[in-house]
Amino acid sequence: MTKMVPQLLTESDIKNQRKDHLSSDDLVGFNVSNSFRQFNQMNDMFTRAYWDESIKSPDTEAFFNSYRADFIPRRGEGFNQKDFALRNASWLISDIISNRGGEKGLREGFQAAIESDTEIAPNKVLIEDVANQSIEIKKIAKLFGADLVGITSVDKRWHYSHRVDTKTFSAVDNELPADCNSVIVMAHAMDYDLVDTYPSALAGASTGREYSHEASICMQLAAYIRGLGYEAIASMNDTALVIPYAIKAGLGEYGRNQMVLTPEYGPRVRFSKIFTSLPLKKDVPKSLGIKEYCNDCTKCAKACPPKALPFGLPTEGSESPSTIKGVKKWSANCEKCFGYWAKIRTDCAICMRVCPFNRKYKSPYDIVWRWLATSRFRKLALIWEAKRKPRKRLKPNDWWN
Amino acid sequence: MTKMVPQLLTESDIKNQRKDHLSSDDLVGFNVSNSFRQFNQMNDMFTRAYWDESIKSPDTEAFFNSYRADFIPRRGEGFNQKDFALRNASWLISDIISNRGGEKGLREGFQAAIESDTEIAPNKVLIEDVANQSIEIKKIAKLFGADLVGITSVDKRWHYSHRVDTKTFSAVDNELPADCNSVIVMAHAMDYDLVDTYPSALAGASTGREYSHEASICMQLAAYIRGLGYEAIASMNDTALVIPYAIKAGLGEYGRNQMVLTPEYGPRVRFSKIFTSLPLKKDVPKSLGIKEYCNDCTKCAKACPPKALPFGLPTEGSESPSTIKGVKKWSANCEKCFGYWAKIRTDCAICMRVCPFNRKYKSPYDIVWRWLATSRFRKLALIWEAKRKPRKRLKPNDWWN
Repeated sequence: MTKMVPQLLTESDIKNQRKDHLSSDDLVGFNVSNSFRQFNQMNDMFTRAYWDESIKSPDTEAFFNSYRADFIPRRGEGFNQKDFALRNASWLISDIISNRGGEKGLREGFQAAIESDTEIAPNKVLIEDVANQSIEIKKIAKLFGADLVGITSVDKRWHYSHRVDTKTFSAVDNELPADCNSVIVMAHAMDYDLVDTYPSALAGASTGREYSHEASICMQLAAYIRGLGYEAIASMNDTALVIPYAIKAGLGEYGRNQMVLTPEYGPRVRFSKIFTSLPLKKDVPKSLGIKEYCNDCTKCAKACPPKALPFGLPTEGSESPSTIKGVKKWSANCEKCFGYWAKIRTDCAICMRVCPFNRKYKSPYDIVWRWLATSRFRKLALIWEAKRKPRKRLKPNDWWN
Repeated sequence: MTKMVPQLLTESDIKNQRKDHLSSDDLVGFNVSNSFRQFNQMNDMFTRAYWDESIKSPDTEAFFNSYRADFIPRRGEGFNQKDFALRNASWLISDIISNRGGEKGLREGFQAAIESDTEIAPNKVLIEDVANQSIEIKKIAKLFGADLVGITSVDKRWHYSHRVDTKTFSAVDNELPADCNSVIVMAHAMDYDLVDTYPSALAGASTGREYSHEASICMQLAAYIRGLGYEAIASMNDTALVIPYAIKAGLGEYGRNQMVLTPEYGPRVRFSKIFTSLPLKKDVPKSLGIKEYCNDCTKCAKACPPKALPFGLPTEGSESPSTIKGVKKWSANCEKCFGYWAKIRTDCAICMRVCPFNRKYKSPYDIVWRWLATSRFRKLALIWEAKRKPRKRLKPNDWWN
């Protein structure tokens, strides 16, 4: 029987985790101070919209209701019935998984880890070569449809101190099997053309489709590992912050727009993860040169309609309960950001669309630009980006036709 | 409230359906005689393995059990624990859908249509141009991951006279909403390299992965149509035979190996379908020249280990209850075929692997060969195929390494 342990750390646990992960913190540039506190999932914006009277509003309710069949189209192209219908349909597989535990207060994939549908095989396959096992796991992740895969070690600082019971909207223990020491992080690329129509309900289909993909893919990969005889817990936004894990696994760097920027897709990805006891060799992240570019680029901050993104250098300060404490980084004003989402009845990712790293990387121009942007000649890439014809948003009607 | 109607046809219904579909029967070369009978799903091999004592055996039970976590690896490469683990994990999403109605005897996607998870939107989007609507539906199907899409009209001759209650393994009414007049057929391409390892438990991952894909994709597309205000029922192997529908929708032609051969992937596809009331323009199938090649080629029949495939020209006769009555076509000996599956504890598709149309169509050779094979110079393609170095099965261990 699997032994489950709560993920809440004491102050001395936090110190120990910092010590254990000092070298990898350095490698990826995590800047964690003494005022660090684990993040309580009760404080994420989506959860606060249910219990925090300062967030909850007719707009936030209309936002959540718009994901159901009786949505009311808003106005203008990209917000018609077929745009909402497409967005909502794209979420379907993720919805089926996240709704099935509703009666138990388990919103799987969001406020609770995904429940395992298969048993762990009674016989453990012998792992003779952990490096080879990591190669094999990555091959299988890609077979199931993951676009990028990295592997890192568990670092409980990034696990929620508490998760949310979605029946009562109260904090409960965030538990994981004791023997899960590794994290497999997968990136799922969003459709370029749909992203190009942000902000619109239509564009939200790029988000929903990837949630449906990531649910399927991380559940299948976890089932595979369980078939090898090892513990594996499939996870989407639940259980832990995926951003530090994606960075630690070497998949990308943290950008001004609050997203992980990958060399392959820029910020145009979503992430899922698996906590596992399978012996695996960890990836060693290296500097990709992306965040240095972000220091000088403020395209996302300028393009943000509610002005929720910061212009300066990373800081530790934010009074919002939705910002993790004691980590020096770029932090959005989550209240302004989500307030805008609620108003337009769909997710906004203009900051993803306008990011200079959001490219297809099929043309030689894009590839040369990336090489420049991540090199010590990044100023040239900034100038090139400033001089090129501004990329316009793809009009939703043009997407349809 | 949706009006559901049983799909069982009377003799005069059958005559009327034949009359209505005479021209499309001619177009696709369906040869349906007066002795035609609708197929009762109780008679498919997988169902018979549960109730027909002449089929049920320790091997068939071990076959079905091998899809659970306590599978017992068989012997030899391709049948190890990790091969079974991969195959079984690949089925996961399809399994979740097909298992959720177990208590009600509804094996969704196999012996019952997939239950809708979303309501039909109260407002019907106005369809002004059915041709354009068909283009749009195909675009959305591909966005969700379908590899090929075709649209045809409902022809109830291919609907099961009865479906199977999987709790009691008895025949029950096979019902569909009365207003569904169109069928959207989608093809889902199987992984070339995995297929190249048939027969093996590993190769079965190519089947399972596509069942998981098709479940997700046809459910999402059906949800989209419901969001437009129209009825849409997602369907995999349930409700109706998909092969005649795939052919009628113009996606391919029927081959000696009992599969639909598509120009894009040969037989390396699986199909799903959606029954819908959405007004759609139907595709008009045209001769692809593939089945003429099959007349002269017997590669699949020669390669079949239990010798279950026919060598001659299409015939109407087969005594097996698992063969539809009154259709002139190539028919396998299903008992021999499934007996072999049960013995090796996994699906066999050697006949798919060795089919000359099973190619990637990335090299100019493949493309020229296909042009020849589907032209009046097909004999040259037969000679070319006979002269080229025999393609060997990919060894499962080579797939892993």
